[in-house]
Amino acid sequence: MRIEIICTGDEVLTGKITNTNFGYMSQKLEDVGLDVYWGTTVGDDREALLTAFRLAAERADAVIVNGGLGPTVDDLSQEIAAQAAGVELVLNEHWLVRMESFFTRRNRKMSPNNRKQAMLPVGSELLDNPIGTACGFAMDIGGARFFFTPGVPRELRRMLEEQIVPRLLARSGSPTAIKLKRYHTYGLGESNVDELLTGVEALAPDGSAKLGFRAHYPQIETKLTIRGTDAEDIQRKLAPLDAEIRVRLGNFIIAEDNDTLEGVVLAKLAEHGHSLALVETFTSGEIAARLAHLPGAERVFRCGIVTRELPQINRALGLPDVSLSGGLDELKAQAVTRGALRQTEATHALTVLIELDEGADRMDLGGTIWTTIATTNDAVTRRSRILGGREWIRLGAVELGLDCLRRYLQGLPVQERSVFERT
Amino acid sequence: MRIEIICTGDEVLTGKITNTNFGYMSQKLEDVGLDVYWGTTVGDDREALLTAFRLAAERADAVIVNGGLGPTVDDLSQEIAAQAAGVELVLNEHWLVRMESFFTRRNRKMSPNNRKQAMLPVGSELLDNPIGTACGFAMDIGGARFFFTPGVPRELRRMLEEQIVPRLLARSGSPTAIKLKRYHTYGLGESNVDELLTGVEALAPDGSAKLGFRAHYPQIETKLTIRGTDAEDIQRKLAPLDAEIRVRLGNFIIAEDNDTLEGVVLAKLAEHGHSLALVETFTSGEIAARLAHLPGAERVFRCGIVTRELPQINRALGLPDVSLSGGLDELKAQAVTRGALRQTEATHALTVLIELDEGADRMDLGGTIWTTIATTNDAVTRRSRILGGREWIRLGAVELGLDCLRRYLQGLPVQERSVFERT
Repeated sequence: MRIEIICTGDEVLTGKITNTNFGYMSQKLEDVGLDVYWGTTVGDDREALLTAFRLAAERADAVIVNGGLGPTVDDLSQEIAAQAAGVELVLNEHWLVRMESFFTRRNRKMSPNNRKQAMLPVGSELLDNPIGTACGFAMDIGGARFFFTPGVPRELRRMLEEQIVPRLLARSGSPTAIKLKRYHTYGLGESNVDELLTGVEALAPDGSAKLGFRAHYPQIETKLTIRGTDAEDIQRKLAPLDAEIRVRLGNFIIAEDNDTLEGVVLAKLAEHGHSLALVETFTSGEIAARLAHLPGAERVFRCGIVTRELPQINRALGLPDVSLSGGLDELKAQAVTRGALRQTEATHALTVLIELDEGADRMDLGGTIWTTIATTNDAVTRRSRILGGREWIRLGAVELGLDCLRRYLQGLPVQERSVFERT
Repeated sequence: MRIEIICTGDEVLTGKITNTNFGYMSQKLEDVGLDVYWGTTVGDDREALLTAFRLAAERADAVIVNGGLGPTVDDLSQEIAAQAAGVELVLNEHWLVRMESFFTRRNRKMSPNNRKQAMLPVGSELLDNPIGTACGFAMDIGGARFFFTPGVPRELRRMLEEQIVPRLLARSGSPTAIKLKRYHTYGLGESNVDELLTGVEALAPDGSAKLGFRAHYPQIETKLTIRGTDAEDIQRKLAPLDAEIRVRLGNFIIAEDNDTLEGVVLAKLAEHGHSLALVETFTSGEIAARLAHLPGAERVFRCGIVTRELPQINRALGLPDVSLSGGLDELKAQAVTRGALRQTEATHALTVLIELDEGADRMDLGGTIWTTIATTNDAVTRRSRILGGREWIRLGAVELGLDCLRRYLQGLPVQERSVFERT
């Protein structure tokens, strides 16, 4: 099935807003085994919209159009859709009533121009939008089925998932039962993960399993899509692959599905009634910023200290000045961590202390990272080197610190080397 | 002049990477007064590329193609360009030599498949890439001039600015002297800024000034494009507009051109040899993370303290526990700020303390923000309310805190209300 996406709107065409809807739709479709073949971006322009609809109607089987369903005069999708199909617009009474109650519930009066949003091409099928005033609709233009969707991302996402994906799967003749399982790793590159998982797809029969990867430094997301006749069939196919993937990626899996590394760390601390103190230098508050605002963190996160000069840590923790002179080592890193533990009375302390190499920022600038975790009767320190410039080091060290803590809390080796580290 | 952009590559088509190049190109062209009329996204697919090139060749005057210039077999731009124009590929000796020296300088051996990157369609014009192995090229296909560019963002950006924009301006017949001036504001919405600047464009003759806006909460970027015959003409036109914009946006201008709010704050502190202490709660380290890693911050940023529970601030600063019981007020906020000043011996302390409303996250969840700035002999506190859910409050408070400090350092009123605040 040939699927096209048409993104509309001057703000998207001019780059005034970054078009994240296109990639989102494309990924969501790929996750259920459907491929997008062509993407078009046009502005709020009658001629361009009509041309785009006609071209897509000729060459595609299904087309998703995003945007142009709003109440203002530059929202043209319904009008041009009707023109392309050679039909009239007609008021959809059902949607008008829905819109009116939408406004009533919010104690607002519906403006007369919202009525336009209930004008749909004759013969089109309404696609519900439970969270906005722009309903979607589906209709045939030429040989293609068109799906019209709102530009507001959260409205699009819900409509795509609940209304459009099931219709596309039904049209494509694919088995409609599909499951997407996601594994997030830290410490491996995309090519490492790809290589480690070679042959895993073949553990499921008939090509019903597909692997995909997405890198966002320093994490890699591995996506496993399983197709089957029903949920039970999928579960049966998934089990051996899931077990194998866990063996192969092992300790590098930091979180699964919608979970995050920081969420996993926080949950683990909360589960045991633990509390956390944090000391960071060049990561400059970024580690705290990942954790401390999360719901529930107020009961776990005790205190974070951010400094750029090591003597300032001593002062903040009430440690003797002398202990940090002349560069870092394991003893000093542990003294700082124990100091943080003592001052905050937290059960756990994490310190990420960075010695940035001298000189201007450049591709091969390096940093030495001292990561320490301490509890009242234990302390582990890991020394790491990352090369790649200031931002690369900073972002890498944030993840490294959080991952060391995850490993410690999960009883996994804190010292296991990541591919980002040098000597 | 009708300009189209064609983005190529499976990673972009499948949404595996978010396509930021499209919006970047579109914005850069708009900044110099050129409009993009159509955008196309296709994968690394011979048939789709050929169709995309032919369609664009029919309807556009100029086409920018992005991606597909790499050394691997799925990089097809040169090959399909030659096919679309009905010409052969020929080795560009000049670029081959350039590539070889590129590798030699990096002590690496050029792989044989890099040779492919020097194969260009007969009759094409080379577009230099001083920072990569993928040269660009320009050629006619049908009635359109095509510009082929590398997918790596920094290589694209430089080639667009140095090689392609001047060629497009020359073809469009526009005066080639153009200046883009940018103003960043905090505390006003896009519609406020738009309204405040009504009529400003008319201060320049013959429509030679154009205003544009870009919102990234909570900042608004105002772009002023001036066209003229030469730099002197532009300067003459710019001066009265620039003066008028400064009057109208006034204290809300936080930075200009490539400067940032945090950069302005840091520079102002550094200029006077000042130093900074920071205390933050629900912003959770995000204020520190904006400032403390910047080059030069190591001499200004003393210490940041992040907590979620107010008693933890007392403990970290060695203040008596009693002072923070029963909610915040100005006196308590100032006691904390003075405590931070005392403990760190910084010249300036900024505290951003947030009382988040009770209950689950929702669109109308609010927070009360106490922002205080203290020096040894002065203290100012501003109480603000922001509604809009956890993330909205958190991001708004980060900017509010940094902006209060900017205003204080620049001698501007710290209490001036922003549009984001509620009673």
